[in-house]
Amino acid sequence: LNKNDDSRVSRGHLHPRIGNQAARYRKSIPPVEELTARLLDGDRSALSRAITLVESTLPEHQAAGAEIVRRILPYTGRSFRIGITGVPGAGKSTFIDGLGTAYVRRGHRVAVLAVDPSGVRNKGSILGDKTRMTRLAKSDAAFIRPSPSGNRPGGVARKTRETILLCEAAGFDRIVVETVGVGQSEIYVHSMTDLFVLLKLPGAGDELQGIKRGIMEMADMILINKADGDLLDEARRAAGFFRNALQWFGSARQVPVTALSSLDPTQIEDVVNRMEEIYRRLKTSGELKQRRDRQQIFWFDETFRDKLDLFLNGDSRLRHIRQSLKEKIISGKITPFDAAETFWNAFIESLASSRKGR
Amino acid sequence: LNKNDDSRVSRGHLHPRIGNQAARYRKSIPPVEELTARLLDGDRSALSRAITLVESTLPEHQAAGAEIVRRILPYTGRSFRIGITGVPGAGKSTFIDGLGTAYVRRGHRVAVLAVDPSGVRNKGSILGDKTRMTRLAKSDAAFIRPSPSGNRPGGVARKTRETILLCEAAGFDRIVVETVGVGQSEIYVHSMTDLFVLLKLPGAGDELQGIKRGIMEMADMILINKADGDLLDEARRAAGFFRNALQWFGSARQVPVTALSSLDPTQIEDVVNRMEEIYRRLKTSGELKQRRDRQQIFWFDETFRDKLDLFLNGDSRLRHIRQSLKEKIISGKITPFDAAETFWNAFIESLASSRKGR
Repeated sequence: LNKNDDSRVSRGHLHPRIGNQAARYRKSIPPVEELTARLLDGDRSALSRAITLVESTLPEHQAAGAEIVRRILPYTGRSFRIGITGVPGAGKSTFIDGLGTAYVRRGHRVAVLAVDPSGVRNKGSILGDKTRMTRLAKSDAAFIRPSPSGNRPGGVARKTRETILLCEAAGFDRIVVETVGVGQSEIYVHSMTDLFVLLKLPGAGDELQGIKRGIMEMADMILINKADGDLLDEARRAAGFFRNALQWFGSARQVPVTALSSLDPTQIEDVVNRMEEIYRRLKTSGELKQRRDRQQIFWFDETFRDKLDLFLNGDSRLRHIRQSLKEKIISGKITPFDAAETFWNAFIESLASSRKGR
Repeated sequence: LNKNDDSRVSRGHLHPRIGNQAARYRKSIPPVEELTARLLDGDRSALSRAITLVESTLPEHQAAGAEIVRRILPYTGRSFRIGITGVPGAGKSTFIDGLGTAYVRRGHRVAVLAVDPSGVRNKGSILGDKTRMTRLAKSDAAFIRPSPSGNRPGGVARKTRETILLCEAAGFDRIVVETVGVGQSEIYVHSMTDLFVLLKLPGAGDELQGIKRGIMEMADMILINKADGDLLDEARRAAGFFRNALQWFGSARQVPVTALSSLDPTQIEDVVNRMEEIYRRLKTSGELKQRRDRQQIFWFDETFRDKLDLFLNGDSRLRHIRQSLKEKIISGKITPFDAAETFWNAFIESLASSRKGR
């Protein structure tokens, strides 16, 4: 039993990690039909297997994963998708443990996913770690899955987005997606969730220095966590400060700011009530549908851009031409516009010959 | 003499607007060699003609314009490029009139250009209007040119960027580019200037509501204008507020914030001194070169993206496919990823057949 396998232990059963190079070939994939049927039946092991296929770098696994996603598409969309962002140490695991447990108590089935394109799995930044969500990890109604790996941030996020669909098809109706906000990951998580929550530490002055632009604009809810013990006063001050700051810099929309102790079940219940109220409002007003439609188009455009980038970076002749053009631009030998014209023609040529080669 | 022609009157001479449909064919273009030579001699009329070629929508004029830009490239880059943004009514014209006049008094040659992709030439948003820069318009050492027209914002900005080069080749060593900040225009102006100045009105509370995210981050200098008469106190309060806000939300870099009366020549002189100090620092530290290199690469990438967009939107078959894919995505019949795959293949096919057709 290696460390990787250990991290997939769930409810006492083993889900061998297919991503592991050796295990890939040890384990045969059940037929797509069977896996899909079991997944729609709520079978957790089938869900895990389907996610592993979606996350795989092997083309045949990817194709099987895409086929499963295609088949379950009619059974998706009926969950409340909640995105959580916050720096390492903001208390995301404790908060999500409390949030998920409260949802389970209300009869919901909760999936916790993560987007961490850094791939760094150190103590500070590990996401979707079962050992840090002790109560939730024990629940039969909860499913916790760490971030897929990969060095293309859009690729990592895309996998998580498909995993949301798989979880919904398997009957999970409250999906939490957490991220530490490395690079563009917040934009990706914002683009796959219905409610985007910014989890902050108390200590307004110091904290604000590090706030990334655009994050405040994306947030639908701001929680100042760790509002207990010595930090209570500071958390309240920070909440007041953020309310003001949002008034100054924010858009017209209302963004609730609350100081919160994730250790206090009553306060967690209040947050859940507030989230559910927003969810109801989003549904009845039609905003939920609009937001999700926009997100779908975002992922369409994003995937197209990703394909373009892959092509541009994957073709060594194009890479070489681009590099040499950039050098000529910087040394003043060519205008950026003439260079772009040259590069565009080289791009078309490469595409055409790649097509011929198929 | 129609209204269009009238707007190009400069120092008593007429520069017929070639963009005018009728005038286009009335006026023959001097050979590129001659125009280039006269431009490098500092001939204002040759400069105007060259800019008109760059701005033209006629392919043969564009080609001539591009050829002139290519030829003058070795004589460019030796100016201080200053970007100014501010909402209509912030007092840009009055400030630029004062700034330009101060520079002329110091022996500089000043060009004032504008980027206004909205194309709206109403009283509130007119940019580069000579009648509003009364002192500067009279000076032989100043050249004022309104925004080129066009409905592709990147295209409008690209023309202005080439116009900067033409002005530099004609001997102008202080270039001011103003914008009202419609759409992406601030990003474009920021990407063609060495110093980006945000001109604000007094009245912190109300004003901040409308501040666009990212603008504060781009600004190298913030001026609270109209700090005179009744507004003096309020402008000072606003300056203090902005200094705090920058501390909270800003990056580590120092952004000077000053309350300013554009009507007071002494205060304008102070601003000029400060700008020149920044320019010296940028040059000696090597930051100027770095910033301009980054800008060149930005324009290379931007022009490539622009070409891609033109192709995608110019091909009616592709437009149709994209529209129908988006509808299928939104109605849940296809995943955004499968749709992107389909669209990528359609794109390659269209490119290949467009190439065959050449």
